[in-house]
Amino acid sequence: MLDRSPLAPAQTPTLPPIAGVRLSAAACEIRYKGRKDATLIEFAPGSTVAGVFTRSLAPSAPVDLCRKHLKGKTARAILVNSGNANAFTGKLGKAACDRSAKAVAETLGCKIGEVFLASTGVIGEPLPVEKLLAGLDGLHRNLSGGGWADAGAAIMTTDTFPKLATRQARIGGVTVTINGIAKGSGMIQPDMATMLAFVATDAKIPAPVLQKLLSTGNERSFNCITVDGDTSTSDTLLLVATGQAKHAAVKSAADAHLKTFRKALDDLLVDLAVQVARDGEGATRLMTIDVTGAVSDKSAHRIALAIGNSPLVKTAVAGADANWGRIVMAVGKAGEKAERDKLKISIGGTTVAAKGQRVAGYDEAPVAAHMKGREIAIAVDLGLGRGEARVWSCDLTHGYIAINGDYRS
Amino acid sequence: MLDRSPLAPAQTPTLPPIAGVRLSAAACEIRYKGRKDATLIEFAPGSTVAGVFTRSLAPSAPVDLCRKHLKGKTARAILVNSGNANAFTGKLGKAACDRSAKAVAETLGCKIGEVFLASTGVIGEPLPVEKLLAGLDGLHRNLSGGGWADAGAAIMTTDTFPKLATRQARIGGVTVTINGIAKGSGMIQPDMATMLAFVATDAKIPAPVLQKLLSTGNERSFNCITVDGDTSTSDTLLLVATGQAKHAAVKSAADAHLKTFRKALDDLLVDLAVQVARDGEGATRLMTIDVTGAVSDKSAHRIALAIGNSPLVKTAVAGADANWGRIVMAVGKAGEKAERDKLKISIGGTTVAAKGQRVAGYDEAPVAAHMKGREIAIAVDLGLGRGEARVWSCDLTHGYIAINGDYRS
Repeated sequence: MLDRSPLAPAQTPTLPPIAGVRLSAAACEIRYKGRKDATLIEFAPGSTVAGVFTRSLAPSAPVDLCRKHLKGKTARAILVNSGNANAFTGKLGKAACDRSAKAVAETLGCKIGEVFLASTGVIGEPLPVEKLLAGLDGLHRNLSGGGWADAGAAIMTTDTFPKLATRQARIGGVTVTINGIAKGSGMIQPDMATMLAFVATDAKIPAPVLQKLLSTGNERSFNCITVDGDTSTSDTLLLVATGQAKHAAVKSAADAHLKTFRKALDDLLVDLAVQVARDGEGATRLMTIDVTGAVSDKSAHRIALAIGNSPLVKTAVAGADANWGRIVMAVGKAGEKAERDKLKISIGGTTVAAKGQRVAGYDEAPVAAHMKGREIAIAVDLGLGRGEARVWSCDLTHGYIAINGDYRS
Repeated sequence: MLDRSPLAPAQTPTLPPIAGVRLSAAACEIRYKGRKDATLIEFAPGSTVAGVFTRSLAPSAPVDLCRKHLKGKTARAILVNSGNANAFTGKLGKAACDRSAKAVAETLGCKIGEVFLASTGVIGEPLPVEKLLAGLDGLHRNLSGGGWADAGAAIMTTDTFPKLATRQARIGGVTVTINGIAKGSGMIQPDMATMLAFVATDAKIPAPVLQKLLSTGNERSFNCITVDGDTSTSDTLLLVATGQAKHAAVKSAADAHLKTFRKALDDLLVDLAVQVARDGEGATRLMTIDVTGAVSDKSAHRIALAIGNSPLVKTAVAGADANWGRIVMAVGKAGEKAERDKLKISIGGTTVAAKGQRVAGYDEAPVAAHMKGREIAIAVDLGLGRGEARVWSCDLTHGYIAINGDYRS
């Protein structure tokens, strides 16, 4: 087992039960020994579902299945395994998914199209589906509203801490709860989706509205983190609403009743996403990169990712080296509109460079002190327009090399 | 000093003199102590010049100057320093370039517009131009046709070996020589140009023809290497033809007389570029990545770079781990046209996966043995069209982290 990331939250939140949601986890020895690696989440009949997925052109078999089942707009179950991604597994992979969905549907008494699947782990090896299904009865028996912590732990791979978050909001005077769990540590640049994350609420929200809320929230959360710039074949973010809360009907994502819900959901998604960046493989420092003054938000996002993915920026941060020239390099290579002589760069709130050169009388002392901390703030203003973005990344350390040099062995 | 890369060529070639080219190197203590860090290359009057440069939007001051002077089409001198990139140095940086070019022109008795400059090292710190110019008289006095090895060593920064190459060709029955030196080890993904490389020949070739030959050759050499995906502010590749060889006039890049010259030049550019990849910071294995069957050469190039830049592929190679699923991931994230179920992947000549899954009866033994070698061959066929590309990269090791975690200290 890896040591807990020094960037892990001081406390793991305790998630309250959500009406209409039950969870369980079990050890199926799919790859790991002596730990839980399978998770079942059950939802009450009539639960609506929204999802966003990897835009990889080599998506995993479970992603294919989820995309298909999402068209039905309702969800009764999510079955997750860690240790094997069931990706690039051809017909065998599809067959394993079909068998799993059928078995879950029979066990819970629901339609196959209401079952969602997610797998995370090694790519290219056939999923030992018998081992997973052998655990299904036990998973079913142990379903409980208090199973969130267990589920959060069982979906981990190289994660060093479980990622959980909870929020409350009010819809038309009625309090609703949102719970979420996520996993992810390496192969993280969910440019269009995320690693695995499952969010549930007792709110009653039609699927198209739910999808809009999720897609919007995802843009500023999971789409804004990177660990290594490597986009997974399996990124999956699902949001399920059980509709058990007795509030007034909502009709659109812009509904005034959804104001605090939207905020709470966005906030929870950012919370989970930043936890993934905090658990980046080998990470010792969290980078928050703010880009402003770009010609568009999209352009700012690309520049922020160029900084957050630069091996030279990431190793400088690892070494607590205030080598801001590497930030200049990363902006220059991003391929987005930039003018050298309008660039302004700050680290930890101290302006380092402006108008194409180091500021007069630059004192490195406060910047050097900031670089020694756990949370590094980098701000770049391009001086061109109103586009802005915030991206979270982590440093690149010996730990990343050690973890990934022999992951399979 | 860093240990010599285990991927360095067994022998450093000895470069013959080229009529019309003299070189020298000196220790100016710009940053490094006890080693030569300044280089002067002088060319005979009438020498033609071609160049390609970084497409960074934050180019260094010397790159700005070279672009301007290239319009004059003739070169009499290149002055190079290592230790300071003179990049993101504002007006001070431009003034340092103007002063240097003027001083070289006065020393050699040529026009300012015939002087080219290149700087490599830390970004953002003012260049101590006095130190450089204090060495100019000595550099001038020591110019010699045999100065290639000295020059090749003096342009190094974190390089562990000097990069030299020489070729001969025949133009209309007359033998001509091409010599080149290059430097580069980190901040290497010269997507549009290169790190520093200087190539000279005694052939007599008009500047527009020379430019065409260089731009074409560059596309398949320096534009096809990566160490860390980070594009420098200072990438500069210059080719100078002194015209001292007494061959028939050539009029276009397609001239039949240039057949062996084109081949020799292309070959020399690949030789130098691959030497840069071999000296990638911390590298222990060289990766040659062949992508075929893409919808276009450009698409193949992007997919090959996605593989060559993936931290997960690079760390797997470092760990001699035949984790080919990471190659699937990198193809999938490249954003280029690909179909999972047509992909074919080979490592070291062994087909690992085809038609979207692992081949039947896959035996990892020969692949595992290949992964333990110094030279790793990865081949991906997309099965879509005729586009192809070859890219060279290196593995990502603890050495890269160690070198870049405290480069400035």
